[in-house]
Amino acid sequence: MIGNEKLAVIGLGSMGYGVAASLLRAGHAVVGVDLNPARAAKFRDAGGMDGALSDHADSLDAVVCVVLNAAQTKAVLFGPDGVVPRLRAGAVVISCATVAPDFAKQMEARCTEAGVLYLDAPISGGPVRAADGTLSVMSAGRPEAYSAARPVLDAMAADVFELGAEAGPGSAMKAVNQLLVGVHIAAMAEAMTFGMTQGVTPEKFLEVISKSAGTSWALESRAPHVVAGKYFPHSAVNIWPKDLGIVLDIAQKAQFGAPVAAAALQQFLAAQGSGLGHEDDAAVAKVYARNAGLTLPGQGT
Amino acid sequence: MIGNEKLAVIGLGSMGYGVAASLLRAGHAVVGVDLNPARAAKFRDAGGMDGALSDHADSLDAVVCVVLNAAQTKAVLFGPDGVVPRLRAGAVVISCATVAPDFAKQMEARCTEAGVLYLDAPISGGPVRAADGTLSVMSAGRPEAYSAARPVLDAMAADVFELGAEAGPGSAMKAVNQLLVGVHIAAMAEAMTFGMTQGVTPEKFLEVISKSAGTSWALESRAPHVVAGKYFPHSAVNIWPKDLGIVLDIAQKAQFGAPVAAAALQQFLAAQGSGLGHEDDAAVAKVYARNAGLTLPGQGT
Repeated sequence: MIGNEKLAVIGLGSMGYGVAASLLRAGHAVVGVDLNPARAAKFRDAGGMDGALSDHADSLDAVVCVVLNAAQTKAVLFGPDGVVPRLRAGAVVISCATVAPDFAKQMEARCTEAGVLYLDAPISGGPVRAADGTLSVMSAGRPEAYSAARPVLDAMAADVFELGAEAGPGSAMKAVNQLLVGVHIAAMAEAMTFGMTQGVTPEKFLEVISKSAGTSWALESRAPHVVAGKYFPHSAVNIWPKDLGIVLDIAQKAQFGAPVAAAALQQFLAAQGSGLGHEDDAAVAKVYARNAGLTLPGQGT
Repeated sequence: MIGNEKLAVIGLGSMGYGVAASLLRAGHAVVGVDLNPARAAKFRDAGGMDGALSDHADSLDAVVCVVLNAAQTKAVLFGPDGVVPRLRAGAVVISCATVAPDFAKQMEARCTEAGVLYLDAPISGGPVRAADGTLSVMSAGRPEAYSAARPVLDAMAADVFELGAEAGPGSAMKAVNQLLVGVHIAAMAEAMTFGMTQGVTPEKFLEVISKSAGTSWALESRAPHVVAGKYFPHSAVNIWPKDLGIVLDIAQKAQFGAPVAAAALQQFLAAQGSGLGHEDDAAVAKVYARNAGLTLPGQGT
C-alpha cells in the first residue's frame, strides 16, 4: 500500500510515535510534532518530514491528535498556536485522546465552524499495537469525516468500530472500556496479592487464573509484569486517575453511581500518591502488597 | 472408557447433577443423593443406582460432595447421618464446594482420622461444562487421594490444576478466582449501564467491548444474559454474597483489605436484598438500572 496523503501526528509519546511510524510505513508523508524536541528529531530521522507544523498546516489532509487529555487536545487544536485555523477546508482532525463525550462534541462543533472535519476516535490496544498499526479505534463522526480519515484509519488500526454519525459515541465507548480495564487491573492486583496471603504464589496465580473463569484481557496483559517484577510503563499508573476520573465525572453528571470503578480509582490514587505514577499500571499491586506486608517478585529479598 | 468404580454424588443441583451424569456416562456405578427426592428420582431414572446412600456407603470408592457451602459439607460428611464414618478405609471424599482453605484442612484432618482420603477440589465452569464432564478443578491433596480420585476427575473435568500435597491450596485458588469473577460480573453490569447513560446500547456494548481491552471471561459469559433480558439462573445472584463473603472473611483474617471486592459485594447484596437472589447473577445489572432510572432489555414496556 502506497499512501499519498500529507499528514501530521501531534504527540509522539508511546502511542503517538507508533501511530506516526505506521503512517510512514503506509507510504504517507508525515510530520511528527511533540513538545519534546528529541522525540520530533527521532521521528524525522525515521523518515518524517522536515519543518514545523506551521510550515505544512495549510496543505495537510489530516491531523492525528494523540495527546494525553482534553486540555492538551484543546490547546493543540485551538490554542495560541492551534492548528485548526491554519488547515485547509475539508482537512480532518482525528482526535485520539480519551475525553468526555461532551468535549468531543464541542471540538467537532468548533472544527465545523472552521470548515474542518472532525473524527471522535479514541484508540485502544497499547504501544505494541500502535507500532504495528493494529490499534482498535472507537470512533464516531460524519460520513465526510470518515471518508477523509479512511487512509489514516487503514494504516493505524486493525479494528475501527463506527459508533455514530456525529462526535460523542466514540468517546462514550472508550469511557466504558476504560472503566472495565481500570477495574480489571486493580482487581488483578487485589486477587494476586490476596492469593499470596493464602499461599498462592504470583506465578501459580497467573498459570491457573489465566485459564479459568477469573481471567480478563487486562489480567493476561498486566499480571505477567508483576510476576516478572518489571514495571517499565507500557501504560502508566498516571493514566488511571485521569481516565477513571473522566468516567466518574461523566457518570456523576448522569446521576450514575459507579461504586466498583470508584473503589478501583482509590487504589490508583494511592499508587500515584506514593510515587508510583510513572511506573507500569500493574504497580498498583505494590499498594496492596505494602498494605498487607507482602513482598512481590523483584522487591526486596 | 468403561469405569468400574462405585461412587456417590451428594448434591444434585445444577452442578452436581451434571457431575453425576458425567460419571454415569463414563461407565461408573453412581448413587445420587439429594435432600430433594425429585432430583434423586430423576437421577435414578437416568441410570443411577437404586437405594439410599447408607445402603452403599461401605462399598463406595469415592464420594463427590457437590453441596452449597461449608456447613452443608460438614453435615453430609460428619453430621448425624454423615457418610464418612460408614466409608471403607481408603475411600476418597472429593469436596467441591467453595469453602475457606482452613475448613478444607479441617475436613482433611477429620477424614484422615477416619481412615478416609480427602481431596480439596472446588470446581469451576458452570452447569453446561458440568454436564459435559469438562469442568475445571482447583485441587490439592495427598498423592494417595489423587490416585483414588483419578477415575472421578477424569470423568468430570477437562482441567485439573494440582496445587498442593495437602488440602487448602485448591480452596485458596478458588477463592482467588471467585474474587475476580464476582468483581468482573459487577463491573460488567456497572459498565453496561454506565454506557446506557452515555447513549451506548447494551447490544453495542457487548459487540464492541467483547472485542476490546475491557473484556473478561465473565463479561462474555454474562453480558449476553442482560442483552437478551434472560435471567434464568445459570449461576444465581445468591452465590456471590456467599463466595465474596468467604473471600472477605479469609482476607480479613489475613489483615488484607480488598476494597474492589468489597464494593462488588455491596452490589450483589443489593440485588439479593431487593428480591433478585434466585435470578441469574447478571441481574446485578438491575440494581444499577433501577438506581439510575434506566430500562434494561426485557424490562417494562
